[in-house]
Amino acid sequence: MKIGILGTGTVGRTLATAWAHAGHAVVLGSRRPDEAVARADLSAAIAAGVGVTDPAAAVTDADVVVNATPGTVSVSALAAAGAAALEGKVLLDVGVGFDEEGGLSHPGRSLGEEIQRAFPGTRVVKSLVTVDRELMVAPDSLAGPSTLFLSGEDADAKHTVTGLLTDLGWPKDSLLDLGGITTARGQEHYALLFMGIAEAIGSYGFGIRVVPPAGS
Amino acid sequence: MKIGILGTGTVGRTLATAWAHAGHAVVLGSRRPDEAVARADLSAAIAAGVGVTDPAAAVTDADVVVNATPGTVSVSALAAAGAAALEGKVLLDVGVGFDEEGGLSHPGRSLGEEIQRAFPGTRVVKSLVTVDRELMVAPDSLAGPSTLFLSGEDADAKHTVTGLLTDLGWPKDSLLDLGGITTARGQEHYALLFMGIAEAIGSYGFGIRVVPPAGS
Repeated sequence: MKIGILGTGTVGRTLATAWAHAGHAVVLGSRRPDEAVARADLSAAIAAGVGVTDPAAAVTDADVVVNATPGTVSVSALAAAGAAALEGKVLLDVGVGFDEEGGLSHPGRSLGEEIQRAFPGTRVVKSLVTVDRELMVAPDSLAGPSTLFLSGEDADAKHTVTGLLTDLGWPKDSLLDLGGITTARGQEHYALLFMGIAEAIGSYGFGIRVVPPAGS
Repeated sequence: MKIGILGTGTVGRTLATAWAHAGHAVVLGSRRPDEAVARADLSAAIAAGVGVTDPAAAVTDADVVVNATPGTVSVSALAAAGAAALEGKVLLDVGVGFDEEGGLSHPGRSLGEEIQRAFPGTRVVKSLVTVDRELMVAPDSLAGPSTLFLSGEDADAKHTVTGLLTDLGWPKDSLLDLGGITTARGQEHYALLFMGIAEAIGSYGFGIRVVPPAGS
């Protein structure tokens, strides 16, 4: 599958490298694709076979677009990459926006919904936002199984994303489909509890597991 | 221990009954303590030995006050019960506020912090807010162990609340102290993910378990 990732920070690079190792054709969209400093930051991804191109080309050629840009700038970054090229595509949104005080940039709402509203012909799926970057690609680093969530309107798009998540090592039975894109609010707002737990246990490398009623 | 509970809804009644069974002296503060209709709703609690009195008396005589009123009216309900009587007391806050559309009444903030700010001499602890009423008093109803969180400024108050939670059946090693009262934001904002999970699995009777890194 051709995956175009917007956002060349640690999350974008980590996902790009992992999906390249899994055999996908991955490109990172960079605003400075030829700059030596930018390429140095991306050297591990490039060594894994990830291409680096401009954002518009990354989106145009992709089967699946991944938003790994900061949540506060995601809509404008996606628009700059090309709204027309996003039409009909699956877009996996892994972004969360924070304000300057560490609070959520979308209190009471969600970035996932904002992106879906801004690009109504794009099939947005929110996931991976409840775990730290390193856990995203190493779910078996935990002491036991944990749960990962999906939100989105389009069942086929969620099926495609499910495949990409299993390629990262997430067992299918660890994935929980929460429903439509409004449920992205729950995933994003969990960031506040995530930070509290991380502070309490002294690690970002934890998951949460949904524990159902006994006998269910 | 003398426990005074404000809020005679299902949460207040369920907690009152469970703590009475555990041997505590529990009173529910009601604005209509002598009304037959109100007492009928409380019959199970009364049968368990729970007293029913007015809110001011419930607070004045208590060692620990429990706020189980709706989050949107909690501060005024506590003020009406008597700010002076709350001075120095442990207050376990289990409330969450929702607006008319089902969103949080305190987006970007928390009810726990609002109560602590309104009653600075009271030792507020937030807990029990990440689980449904029935699970609050039956943590062993799940398929495995889950995690319950505490937030608050006062270590002694958290110690007292820890005792009350173990009386409800929560093992000590299931409790995670998140830190100061600002971490109540995480517990309260989790309500949005809670509702998404409940819808997805078709039950409110679930917990979440923090899964730490392997070997930790």
